[in-house]
Amino acid sequence: MKIKILTIFPEMFDGFLNCSIIKRATDAGKVEIECINFREYTKDKHNKVDDTPYGGGQGMILACQPLADAIQANKTERTKVILVTPEGTTFRQPIAHKLAMEDELMFVCGHYEGFDARIKNYIDMELSLGDFVLTGGETAAMVFTDAVVRLLDGVIRKDSYEDESFEQGLLEYPQYTKPAVYDGYEVPEILLSGHHENIRIWRLKESLRQTLQKRPDLLEKKQLTKEEQKLLDEIKRDCH
Amino acid sequence: MKIKILTIFPEMFDGFLNCSIIKRATDAGKVEIECINFREYTKDKHNKVDDTPYGGGQGMILACQPLADAIQANKTERTKVILVTPEGTTFRQPIAHKLAMEDELMFVCGHYEGFDARIKNYIDMELSLGDFVLTGGETAAMVFTDAVVRLLDGVIRKDSYEDESFEQGLLEYPQYTKPAVYDGYEVPEILLSGHHENIRIWRLKESLRQTLQKRPDLLEKKQLTKEEQKLLDEIKRDCH
Repeated sequence: MKIKILTIFPEMFDGFLNCSIIKRATDAGKVEIECINFREYTKDKHNKVDDTPYGGGQGMILACQPLADAIQANKTERTKVILVTPEGTTFRQPIAHKLAMEDELMFVCGHYEGFDARIKNYIDMELSLGDFVLTGGETAAMVFTDAVVRLLDGVIRKDSYEDESFEQGLLEYPQYTKPAVYDGYEVPEILLSGHHENIRIWRLKESLRQTLQKRPDLLEKKQLTKEEQKLLDEIKRDCH
Repeated sequence: MKIKILTIFPEMFDGFLNCSIIKRATDAGKVEIECINFREYTKDKHNKVDDTPYGGGQGMILACQPLADAIQANKTERTKVILVTPEGTTFRQPIAHKLAMEDELMFVCGHYEGFDARIKNYIDMELSLGDFVLTGGETAAMVFTDAVVRLLDGVIRKDSYEDESFEQGLLEYPQYTKPAVYDGYEVPEILLSGHHENIRIWRLKESLRQTLQKRPDLLEKKQLTKEEQKLLDEIKRDCH
């Protein structure tokens, strides 16, 4: 996969691109990530990329020309061009899976007050990280990149993410590692029992319990198996 | 404000801390951000911070000792300790405002398969970036930091964010800058009229229109003013 990131702060990505799984995936040739400074595409003689908003108001708006030209100069027929904006579709795990199947992604990052709205004529999709405001799209583009790259074939073991939060529409069960008692806090006894089937059921039940307590909205959307429904009924009975 | 970030990849933050508004806020003394490698707190003789999960399963789990000791060595009475985890409360703009009122924040970033659940005895709050899975909490901690720091007094002009998406429970209206026609696409005429009151009403209406089309869930939660309700009724009438 190729990922191109259009930004006026390419140096913001230095640490991100040279650490951990992103670096490993790049070194292994699973992904090629390029940061492109769209300021290099401006035709303004003072090298400006923004201007005051029509109709008045605070702050500066990114102009169409540098962005549109940078997009067109760097995209191919196979590129999915994604505008990072709070007005977009909210990013969730199923979108990460969909994007992981593309050949090329391009993330277009705004900064400060936002874009000239006409830039939407040059993109394929608007994507939001969530219901909050950032100074720019850069940190959001890092999050999207991280979430997508880890799903690419051969980057991490598939069996290591199948149980994770959101993959099955549930929060993950609690995990524990050595020692069995830390600072007076004990690991649940069943995890020390070695009884695989009981451990599987306990984990599924705890996963359902966490989701019920913290994110009941996820349970409403989920199609439960018979076993899950039975465990959920038990949890609800326990509460009364 | 002080922000401390506990991570095994402090170098991942280099670019982020040295760019744009975060750098400006740091230089101006509005915020002090420190990345702390909690590996330095491990008592394991091989310098390990993780171990295999009790009860079996893929991947490694971050152990309690290095994390708990790093938290306790670096927090003060005034520190709000926040565990970055998909099981936490979903981050939204009102949470950014709440966190911006704290004296000290500490973001605890996991990596790979997650934490020993007993670490939750040492923290004040669990915070999630959204319904997706990341390789670690680092990019999420950058997002939280960015969203909070921009709200600190004197970092950006207050009037420059009051209109933004989510601040009023609505998506932002479309913005435009020069030229009036770009590549055949025109700026809405009203923005060139110079009529401030008409422009204000147009913007409010477009803000409502965007929210209705893209995020009707936000409208359901919002207490509308009389003017907003009237404009929304107009939009709905226009559609029929």
